[in-house]
Amino acid sequence: MNDAVDVALILDLLGVFSFAVSGCLLAARKGFDIVGSLLLGSLVGLGGGVVRDLIINAGVPAAFSNPLYIIPPLLAALLVYFLFSSVQRFGNLLVVFDAGGLALFCVTGTLKALEFGLNPVSAILLGVTTAVGGGLLRDVTANEVPKIFDPRDVYAVPAFAGAFLVVLLDTFGWSNVFTTTGVAAAVFAFRILAWRFSWNVPLAVQGWHR
Amino acid sequence: MNDAVDVALILDLLGVFSFAVSGCLLAARKGFDIVGSLLLGSLVGLGGGVVRDLIINAGVPAAFSNPLYIIPPLLAALLVYFLFSSVQRFGNLLVVFDAGGLALFCVTGTLKALEFGLNPVSAILLGVTTAVGGGLLRDVTANEVPKIFDPRDVYAVPAFAGAFLVVLLDTFGWSNVFTTTGVAAAVFAFRILAWRFSWNVPLAVQGWHR
Amino acid sequence: MNDAVDVALILDLLGVFSFAVSGCLLAARKGFDIVGSLLLGSLVGLGGGVVRDLIINAGVPAAFSNPLYIIPPLLAALLVYFLFSSVQRFGNLLVVFDAGGLALFCVTGTLKALEFGLNPVSAILLGVTTAVGGGLLRDVTANEVPKIFDPRDVYAVPAFAGAFLVVLLDTFGWSNVFTTTGVAAAVFAFRILAWRFSWNVPLAVQGWHR
Repeated sequence: MNDAVDVALILDLLGVFSFAVSGCLLAARKGFDIVGSLLLGSLVGLGGGVVRDLIINAGVPAAFSNPLYIIPPLLAALLVYFLFSSVQRFGNLLVVFDAGGLALFCVTGTLKALEFGLNPVSAILLGVTTAVGGGLLRDVTANEVPKIFDPRDVYAVPAFAGAFLVVLLDTFGWSNVFTTTGVAAAVFAFRILAWRFSWNVPLAVQGWHR
Repeated sequence: MNDAVDVALILDLLGVFSFAVSGCLLAARKGFDIVGSLLLGSLVGLGGGVVRDLIINAGVPAAFSNPLYIIPPLLAALLVYFLFSSVQRFGNLLVVFDAGGLALFCVTGTLKALEFGLNPVSAILLGVTTAVGGGLLRDVTANEVPKIFDPRDVYAVPAFAGAFLVVLLDTFGWSNVFTTTGVAAAVFAFRILAWRFSWNVPLAVQGWHR
Repeated sequence: MNDAVDVALILDLLGVFSFAVSGCLLAARKGFDIVGSLLLGSLVGLGGGVVRDLIINAGVPAAFSNPLYIIPPLLAALLVYFLFSSVQRFGNLLVVFDAGGLALFCVTGTLKALEFGLNPVSAILLGVTTAVGGGLLRDVTANEVPKIFDPRDVYAVPAFAGAFLVVLLDTFGWSNVFTTTGVAAAVFAFRILAWRFSWNVPLAVQGWHR
């Protein structure tokens, strides 16, 4: 039990770190300063989880009760400050770290929803909300068209699939460290493949073409 | 009592559906894909109510505890996908469905606030917040200037008036299915008339002219 | 004790008023009408505090339980409507009132976090969130690049410093009306000086130059 909690915490902190790096990279690309980088990184890394914790009514959100949650955004801002000077790779790296956050948060969000007794449908909805929330906040705040709405890209479908698989694993009692980490890895791979090979889904209105 | 709850639930679900359709129509107009349509529809339809439920501190918000709430956004995305192919009428339809959501949510938001013991002033504020919240999220997320701030249009005043009337009905003990539905219908009519006949209110600074 | 609560309430209401004026001034500059001015003023003045109160899990947020909180946004919209007709000074006044809100909210946000038992690190984070939240909502809603991310300006650093000082005063038992008001005044002065003399901090990536 204690182990399970620790694994969930570690996956959650890794998700915070991934999203925070994507926020700091966007801050770098938009010419923000180091403080703006730390703030955007914190907003993206912690925002989705705060919304999740408010919704499941779990008291003070983890980001504001566990000081450990401050560390990933700090590391992300420092990493981007010291390690990246080549502008060209910003866009690709941003997608990769964003995919990491998406994969980890759809798993941890769904698990936390189930842990707090939400029904399976709501657990999937909350997993997707947690997964896409941070990136949505990032893009809206930085005045970009949210990646989630880009019709040339598949973004939310991997998160839906991952949240669905976590609920399925939980229903059959197969939910453990290895299977849930496996789901996160599969979501990450799905998202990266969709991006690399430009997969897409039909438009909002039948019969329209790009 | 049970009847009253069911009516409130039905009005709330109708409000979710109205706003969700407005979100899906905007998604269609902006060329989003079907998943983006579902996500924007869900955000618009469920966003205002989630904010309302978080503020009144009512435990897990209805959208995440009652699986019924997933149905209106799904229907809205399917409806827009299959039924609309004529682009020209998107704008008008969006305003009509948005007005429906505004009318229904200012009533259900105010009623729920009163039910949870908020004072009359706060109940009006929460009714207006619920009513304008979804549309604000829709426009901010899709990178549009929020309809709520368009000086050529009257948008929030009908919601204020509706929330005020609901509080008045409640104070005099006249609040029932027929009177509250009547208020929703009046708010809808007010909003549509204001739009059709281009009513407007003074600008933010005295003496300025359009 | 009762006195301390009243002082905190007065500082909080002054912060709401300051931020609300900044919202109404932005509404005026963007040509919104008087209702849009009231709504943007309310969102900016009350938004940061509502987020703060949701996070500390303190029941219904103050803005929705204490009717007094409606007064500052109403006054702000009336003030801007009747008193300002000279467009030129809008920008400067907006910065001054925004700085007042920033200074007051970083103090009241941190104090409230400590009062509700958050650890020092989280209290600083919540103080900064409260202080920058309202302005972020204002700029995102009105479709401006958030002031918080402007690399030519120092915005969040004074809030960080102020929240840190409040935690320090609390740790040493020196927190009282005079010291906390003094911190607010110092944060205000820091912010105004940083703006007047165009101080700035390094960019998000090392070695880049403006």
